[in-house]
Amino acid sequence: MMKTLSVKLGERSYPIYIGYNLLSQPEFISRHITGREVLIVTNETIAPLYLQLVLNSLHNHSCKSVILPDGEKFKSLDILNKIFDQLLINNFSKQVTLIALGGGVIGDITGFAAACYQRGVPFLQIPTTLLSQVDSSIGGKTAVNHALGKNMIGAFYHPKCVIADTNTLNTLNNRQLSSGLAEIIKYSLINDYDFFIWLKRNMQALKARDSLILTKAIERSCLNKANIVANDEFEHETRILLNFGHTFGHAIETGTGYGNWLHGEAIACGMVIASDLSRRLGWLNIEDTESISNLLKSSDLPITTPQCMTVCQFMDLMSVDKKIKNDKIRLILLKGIGNAVVSDDYPLNILASTLESFSH
Amino acid sequence: MMKTLSVKLGERSYPIYIGYNLLSQPEFISRHITGREVLIVTNETIAPLYLQLVLNSLHNHSCKSVILPDGEKFKSLDILNKIFDQLLINNFSKQVTLIALGGGVIGDITGFAAACYQRGVPFLQIPTTLLSQVDSSIGGKTAVNHALGKNMIGAFYHPKCVIADTNTLNTLNNRQLSSGLAEIIKYSLINDYDFFIWLKRNMQALKARDSLILTKAIERSCLNKANIVANDEFEHETRILLNFGHTFGHAIETGTGYGNWLHGEAIACGMVIASDLSRRLGWLNIEDTESISNLLKSSDLPITTPQCMTVCQFMDLMSVDKKIKNDKIRLILLKGIGNAVVSDDYPLNILASTLESFSH
Repeated sequence: MMKTLSVKLGERSYPIYIGYNLLSQPEFISRHITGREVLIVTNETIAPLYLQLVLNSLHNHSCKSVILPDGEKFKSLDILNKIFDQLLINNFSKQVTLIALGGGVIGDITGFAAACYQRGVPFLQIPTTLLSQVDSSIGGKTAVNHALGKNMIGAFYHPKCVIADTNTLNTLNNRQLSSGLAEIIKYSLINDYDFFIWLKRNMQALKARDSLILTKAIERSCLNKANIVANDEFEHETRILLNFGHTFGHAIETGTGYGNWLHGEAIACGMVIASDLSRRLGWLNIEDTESISNLLKSSDLPITTPQCMTVCQFMDLMSVDKKIKNDKIRLILLKGIGNAVVSDDYPLNILASTLESFSH
Repeated sequence: MMKTLSVKLGERSYPIYIGYNLLSQPEFISRHITGREVLIVTNETIAPLYLQLVLNSLHNHSCKSVILPDGEKFKSLDILNKIFDQLLINNFSKQVTLIALGGGVIGDITGFAAACYQRGVPFLQIPTTLLSQVDSSIGGKTAVNHALGKNMIGAFYHPKCVIADTNTLNTLNNRQLSSGLAEIIKYSLINDYDFFIWLKRNMQALKARDSLILTKAIERSCLNKANIVANDEFEHETRILLNFGHTFGHAIETGTGYGNWLHGEAIACGMVIASDLSRRLGWLNIEDTESISNLLKSSDLPITTPQCMTVCQFMDLMSVDKKIKNDKIRLILLKGIGNAVVSDDYPLNILASTLESFSH
């Protein structure tokens, strides 16, 4: 059972494969590698679980691997340089293919390394977390963090394919699973009301890792993302809606120190804040606002802000977020479930009221 | 007196302005800046000379500057991060414009910073050396060095315009002027026999910095480069010819420690080595080989290799250079003056003979 979707971007189009045990089928990996040289980038958690499986597919290649420490705080220029070290120590040429084997951090840093090494070499995404399978592996956004802001240094650079083996989700802990559910719920909120209803109905099955239901949720999420990316690759317009919850969420991630809150957890809380602001603006009714909070809560995601963060800290951190245009913070807000809009048309005091209502 | 050329790349096309005292005409800079925020990146040598002149053009902007140490050895990821620091400390958004004010190192590192900051912001090139005016500011190759190889980390990313103010050449020392002449001579060797004859005739005037003759040489060089880049932006085919002398030259730069040999000096020596190999292959006659050496020598450029470098070291360093395809070192060689070819069709022992003939 395998599903193939496509991210349609002209000559940069690429397939997304979603299915069970794909990593045990060597051709899924090797047929997307054109040269002889391969560098697998993974981390300490994933390597013992899946590295050998991927290596098995590549016995005809000159294949090396680099194992990075695990966690968002290692998505830095320093750790990026470790990938370049390995590429150069092995004398790998412009014909090398990089493979990102891991979650969002590995995908983002490996993609950025591929974008920069000798000004661009091919790479493959093998996302092993729910979050990376439904979101970060698709769409070509690669980056590392800077001490002063998340994802501030990066490139738009697409993989040759995305291989989402749902078998890898069995090794996730519950917190990581929930983190992925946050991004799944996000698609329903910005663009897909029917999916929101479906998610409410199937949340218990998703948390129980029902393979069929989980695969359906991944497919629907990938389809949503692939369509949005195909319509606006460089985020000039509609793609920015994918950042729903992220302006607040990035502030939480930076404010609490990278990695203490999982990305999906921060985004869940950010979506609750954005919903509250939408409600205060009269754009979202109280029932829908509560329905959003309840779905996130039932996914075991946080819906209140970290104890340590003040309103001032939020405002400060949000101002370095990328959703700024000419000094006014543009936010993604909801005009009903399934209908996100980007707007700077809100009074600042209402934003302040929202943040105050979440402060401790 | 100003000349405008164009690098024709569809929607990424941009103008090259060449002329005297352009920096004193504010509109040359400001009309290519769309937002309010500007970060000027320059170095300790250039800042006292030209930073205020550029700032004068930007009094309507929110303008900051970052002054980097001067030299090839500072074209590193660490120094790149200093640019990101300044961008983030100033809360600069995706609407910021970067200005590269300096030579090739400043242009390369600033262009790469622009390519990566928030996944891409606009930038302007204001090259202040002969070498950067005729070569590195044009064509969108940006990069930083890695300890194990030059320009190994970078991006193809084009400026909004190139402003080559020939007035800035008056502050170059003779060694830097000669370094630029090396790249000018390169264009004649790979693609433009008539230009080679013209250069032989006008070398004394060029070295005497005759303004008219120098401007003509810059124009002809930029025209050569712009045409080659327009035909092969991503260096899949003919653009690689621009690397004539660079495989050997990069080995010299890395082998002697970045910055001890100027780029043009290393490339001059590299072109002599490549010519010698071309002669041994029967592709270049002895008269033309000597004529090339003589022109470079009359430009006060080195035509013998550094004392410290052995044949083995050359071979080692060349193998990490980017002109590799499937383990065979591809070299740019001459089949006559004005006719460069890319080839791996040479016996390795002849390459070894060439390198041995240059060893001390």
